Amino acid sequence: MGPDPAVAAVRVAVRRALDALPPHRMVLVACSGGADSLALAAALAFEAPRAGRPAGGVTIDHGLQEGSAARAEKVVRAMADLGLDPAGAVAVTVGNRGGPENAARDARYSALDETAADLAAAAVLLGHTRDDQAETVLMGLARGSGARSLAGMPASFVRTREAQEIRYVRPLLDIDRATTRRACLAMGLEPWDDPHNDDPAYTRVRVRHEALPVLEKALGPGITEALARTARMLRDDADALDGIADRAYAECETAAPEPYSVALTLDVLAGLAKAVRTRVLRKAAIAAGSPPGTLAAVHVEHVDRLVTAWHGQRHVDLPGGVRAYRREGRLLFGPGRPE
Amino acid sequence: MGPDPAVAAVRVAVRRALDALPPHRMVLVACSGGADSLALAAALAFEAPRAGRPAGGVTIDHGLQEGSAARAEKVVRAMADLGLDPAGAVAVTVGNRGGPENAARDARYSALDETAADLAAAAVLLGHTRDDQAETVLMGLARGSGARSLAGMPASFVRTREAQEIRYVRPLLDIDRATTRRACLAMGLEPWDDPHNDDPAYTRVRVRHEALPVLEKALGPGITEALARTARMLRDDADALDGIADRAYAECETAAPEPYSVALTLDVLAGLAKAVRTRVLRKAAIAAGSPPGTLAAVHVEHVDRLVTAWHGQRHVDLPGGVRAYRREGRLLFGPGRPE
Repeated sequence: MGPDPAVAAVRVAVRRALDALPPHRMVLVACSGGADSLALAAALAFEAPRAGRPAGGVTIDHGLQEGSAARAEKVVRAMADLGLDPAGAVAVTVGNRGGPENAARDARYSALDETAADLAAAAVLLGHTRDDQAETVLMGLARGSGARSLAGMPASFVRTREAQEIRYVRPLLDIDRATTRRACLAMGLEPWDDPHNDDPAYTRVRVRHEALPVLEKALGPGITEALARTARMLRDDADALDGIADRAYAECETAAPEPYSVALTLDVLAGLAKAVRTRVLRKAAIAAGSPPGTLAAVHVEHVDRLVTAWHGQRHVDLPGGVRAYRREGRLLFGPGRPE
Repeated sequence: MGPDPAVAAVRVAVRRALDALPPHRMVLVACSGGADSLALAAALAFEAPRAGRPAGGVTIDHGLQEGSAARAEKVVRAMADLGLDPAGAVAVTVGNRGGPENAARDARYSALDETAADLAAAAVLLGHTRDDQAETVLMGLARGSGARSLAGMPASFVRTREAQEIRYVRPLLDIDRATTRRACLAMGLEPWDDPHNDDPAYTRVRVRHEALPVLEKALGPGITEALARTARMLRDDADALDGIADRAYAECETAAPEPYSVALTLDVLAGLAKAVRTRVLRKAAIAAGSPPGTLAAVHVEHVDRLVTAWHGQRHVDLPGGVRAYRREGRLLFGPGRPE
């Protein structure tokens, strides 16, 4: 008799992820003790020896809840019991930069980077599921800033720490949360339910418990899968268009006269598809010093009108004291008051 | 004292739409008697004479509700009172092809095409608002078939009827439903509330009354605007990628040997960005006879693996009895059993 289908599904996903990594080297799993990452940790402990590589586990103690150190110790014991070696906890100090959720995230990834670098791990596996992906897409929908904001979480990404590259992989993005829970049950593992996951102060919790169930009722089942598929397709679109825009930028760029920092040729710009042109203009504004975080689609839209709907506008003001001008066949980006 | 701000907003939107149309020719408005299209009709009646062009109104009697003919007559009188000339009703017969909603839509557009052609109208204005657009995007989300399904309704499109082109324009896509209602109130117009708009049997009604309010609560106000903006940006992306894929297709295409109908060069395919390549493959499958309505992203994904992850797969079966094969440096599309 083979393993439970839920256990098998998680294992197959982990096996595929391991197959894509450089052989023999250690792989780590980041485990909170929740059902998703606990099922992932168990699957890694099972698959790694069969693939001839060491596997370890790390849990992060954010120190934000009463008893979090004891909680982390329990997760370490569970990981060690699964056969992960090393299995350890890292305590981090969470500040408040960019809000509590971002600060916790930054602290967590820094600790994971460091652990992975110390152990020369080929990758850190993360337990995000298809449900997490669907939630991320819906949260991106509220930003309304195009394909990239709907592209969800990548299946794999790299962070750089002191010139060292740390790879992160999400093997469970095609597996739903119910499967990881069933897998834990079938393996006799007791996942920990973080009380934060029920606190409606968090946008993600509201999306999970309120928005997604209602969307499913209105649009039919399968919405989670549809959102995850959308994310994958829009990520491909965004990647393709970014690549095309990079090449178009190089074709448009020309020497910028003092005091401007970026100059683009209008003729070339005008011949581009709008989706490519707006990406080129965004890139130019950022190169001239406009901060990516505050430069919005509506700003880029106004710059675009200097190209496609010019009726004598003098300039367009952008965040960061950058101004766009149309002059002598070129679009110029420079300081707010150059004269 | 100027007009009420809501009235002014609708008029400005209509004025901009008229400015983009060929001068002097008649413009029609399609009016159901609901707040959106009634406010639109009033704004057209106000703006058209000032722009030196005749303006007419047409309402469609779908014959689906008790008293619909009397209802249509009321709308005709309201349009005539606004000064639209001609103002008329067209009764249509709604079949059941593609479901009741699609059948009603087909019958409606056929009648509008014919009326517009008879009157040599430059365009037919439609009353869809930003709220309608947001609903359309959410409904597209459930399909999960990428940028095109999230691109919502275009601000302008053309239908062809007996070699004649009929242009349709949606001037109110940036205006919300509350504004059209306020505009009607300010002008003393009494909009008709279609009982269908409250019938939860319709997906759109569920999205409007259940999904959007909950999404707004979970994600914050402004979700309607964000969805409409998303639609606009993803439409631009889809247009750009379709254009790029058309050119890539031409570069890939090569003479197809019997009994195949389409052949693409693998080398060229392999060099394309995934978002472009999948669009080229989809186009090829359709050219070989696979029906666009049933050819799904997952089918195209399997064909893509013949290019990028080939390990000896013999062929991929596609809807419509089309098969994709990898042979001698080419991808071939042809009948299911050519040998």
